[in-house]
Amino acid sequence: MTVTFRPLLAGLGLSAALLASASTQAQDVDKAIEYRQGALRVMAWQLGPLGDMAQGDIDYDAEAFALRANNLAAVSHLPWEGFIEGSLQGDGHDIETRAQAAIGDDWAGFEERQATFRQEAATLAEMVEAGEEFNALRRQVGAVANSCSGCHDNYRWG
Amino acid sequence: MTVTFRPLLAGLGLSAALLASASTQAQDVDKAIEYRQGALRVMAWQLGPLGDMAQGDIDYDAEAFALRANNLAAVSHLPWEGFIEGSLQGDGHDIETRAQAAIGDDWAGFEERQATFRQEAATLAEMVEAGEEFNALRRQVGAVANSCSGCHDNYRWG
Repeated sequence: MTVTFRPLLAGLGLSAALLASASTQAQDVDKAIEYRQGALRVMAWQLGPLGDMAQGDIDYDAEAFALRANNLAAVSHLPWEGFIEGSLQGDGHDIETRAQAAIGDDWAGFEERQATFRQEAATLAEMVEAGEEFNALRRQVGAVANSCSGCHDNYRWG
Repeated sequence: MTVTFRPLLAGLGLSAALLASASTQAQDVDKAIEYRQGALRVMAWQLGPLGDMAQGDIDYDAEAFALRANNLAAVSHLPWEGFIEGSLQGDGHDIETRAQAAIGDDWAGFEERQATFRQEAATLAEMVEAGEEFNALRRQVGAVANSCSGCHDNYRWG
């Protein structure tokens, strides 16, 4: 099979270089998906205790709250560069993703929602820095969570 | 089987509450491993272009370099809280990990190496901020990469 590979490709109008390039692109897409999934997991981890405190599931701890709010704001701009062309559902890559193809039809809307989330997360960190009271912080956690849902409801499957 | 479950547990001296607690802990360990793997993946993604530029594999781009250096410094403190008790190799959790059990025998050494990495990443971002030349930045990328290896060589399998 190996000896007939190059002639076969040549017959199909393909070159080894082109194939190598396509393979690199596929690998890039896989890595981009894994990157964004990692970054979103980090965001969820940081948001978790904020949500738990806001909902009264765990006690409010000002130090822990500040740490999580700062971490969340610090990573809020990271995941989005991983949503590259060819990385959505049905794009034929090797990684399972819940990123719906609808993102590709509404890139501007997707980016707008990212910006809303980044703004809400930044506001939360600023409110902590300004020493605002827990009730106000609690409401802002709600605004952050809503901005997550604003995207998930439209662009994430399941 | 369902109806005999509680009596069986009672006979073994276990309670449903205890089991639930053990299950929650196992889930916590799994989540902590997935969290740190996500955070380390984010770090690797940010470090990648810095290494490529430092080694001349891609052209030096001051803006991209600054972005990656800042992102790397911003996330350099994140992964470590995911290395919790019961989350190393052989600890019987459900997630594949390369974190060697040796970490558990040398926690202080592990933390020291984390601190070295954080310091090297912070130094790189400060050097960018100070407008240092590419040759100096390049050497500092080497220092950052060495601090990664300092940990991986000792505590990561494969």
